[in-house]
Amino acid sequence: MGRASSFCKYSRRRHEIDHPEAAMTATDNAAPPGLSQTFAKGIAVLRAFDEAQSHLTLAEVARRAGLDRAAARRLVLTLAHLGYVRQQGRVFSLTPRVLVLAGSFLRGHRFGIAVQPVLAAAAARVGEQVSLAMPDGEHAVYVAQAAPAGGMVSLGLTLGSRVPLGQTAIGQALLAFMDRPPAGAMPRNGLAGVRRAGFAFADGVFEPGMAGLAVPVGAGGKAALGMSAPSVRLAQGPARTACLATLRDAARALAPVVEDL
Amino acid sequence: MGRASSFCKYSRRRHEIDHPEAAMTATDNAAPPGLSQTFAKGIAVLRAFDEAQSHLTLAEVARRAGLDRAAARRLVLTLAHLGYVRQQGRVFSLTPRVLVLAGSFLRGHRFGIAVQPVLAAAAARVGEQVSLAMPDGEHAVYVAQAAPAGGMVSLGLTLGSRVPLGQTAIGQALLAFMDRPPAGAMPRNGLAGVRRAGFAFADGVFEPGMAGLAVPVGAGGKAALGMSAPSVRLAQGPARTACLATLRDAARALAPVVEDL
Repeated sequence: MGRASSFCKYSRRRHEIDHPEAAMTATDNAAPPGLSQTFAKGIAVLRAFDEAQSHLTLAEVARRAGLDRAAARRLVLTLAHLGYVRQQGRVFSLTPRVLVLAGSFLRGHRFGIAVQPVLAAAAARVGEQVSLAMPDGEHAVYVAQAAPAGGMVSLGLTLGSRVPLGQTAIGQALLAFMDRPPAGAMPRNGLAGVRRAGFAFADGVFEPGMAGLAVPVGAGGKAALGMSAPSVRLAQGPARTACLATLRDAARALAPVVEDL
Repeated sequence: MGRASSFCKYSRRRHEIDHPEAAMTATDNAAPPGLSQTFAKGIAVLRAFDEAQSHLTLAEVARRAGLDRAAARRLVLTLAHLGYVRQQGRVFSLTPRVLVLAGSFLRGHRFGIAVQPVLAAAAARVGEQVSLAMPDGEHAVYVAQAAPAGGMVSLGLTLGSRVPLGQTAIGQALLAFMDRPPAGAMPRNGLAGVRRAGFAFADGVFEPGMAGLAVPVGAGGKAALGMSAPSVRLAQGPARTACLATLRDAARALAPVVEDL
């Protein structure tokens, strides 16, 4: 009982770090003074829609956002009224308008002009999809991607995808150089090797036989650039050396942009 | 005075169609019953950050969201607490976490697996950036993009960018096939030619000498696939024919995915 309950508390805490909306809207947590609990609940409703379930009933929205049905209804209907959510019968889903929120970030930082061409060139040179990621709590969030024509079908990670920092190469390349890495994200065996080598390598995280290679972009763990490829290609030898050189060139080109983020 | 005031009313109405948050939070507009005005105000604060100004003071947030300073402060601090906005001194800006909202839409509809590889292949064949767009009110919103290596530096339109429906090729390819096109978006000379030809062509909209070519994806104007290139290349002749064939092949491949959106 003791173990189970402290495990639950631990998972609960992790969930709250990952989803501050949940922490703020939980009934046993008062909202910090001066903040809007209604707005936080609304964001929790928006976050209820995710890759695992893109079409939700009102009851599902309420359960996933941790709200009572009346509050969930009011907030999801507000989103529908504003055009971010569409209702078809009893089912709600996100509309493309949610992308406009991402577009503000991307265009505000000139990603189209300053980031995307560098990524496209790197993807063509290594012959695989490359991704730029930035830290978001205990996760890495993918902020830009480029794929070569005729490359392998992607693992399904798109812009806005989140992966746990400690588990993948791109996450480790962030974590190893962060000024204040989140304690819970650090892998058990540490990241001294990554810091020494200046790159991260992780094998078989998403799929057996597939590996990830990633390098930091700029200083302080603000961003990292990574790629996935069959393990045999990235484990060692000249192919790995060439990929690493391409990633490092691109990282150097991207550093001034990232500095500004 | 009469003309000026009706022009203002017209612009105001267009602004409200484009920004339903503004309509809902305007002080002379009561919120529709059963909806949350606080949540709508919060979204207006999130939308205040855009490509024109990525770093805002509290006074600027308030002005752009049409709120008084106290309300804007409470909502922007809530966004900062939730990790969507960062504060540096007196200035606030979006964090990469806003991309997670887009990621839910993109992964929920399997864009990484079902859309991105088709776009990457099309971009390589035409040798230019290609974009998939969907309608959002009187605008087209870019929901996916791919660029060839060594292609021209992009015009700066990224995922989540919005362009007026009537003015660009991609917008016209949506508008011409929509079941209920928004009246205000229709270009003066209509779109019968686009419907007849099955594609849209627009010259020099963003930049003199650059043109856009776009085709509908699936039925009902749900999505369109487009590209930009120097006008001389797209105006006529075998290069245009080849580009059009590539766009149409890709559109056919994407139709089942779009059907499901």
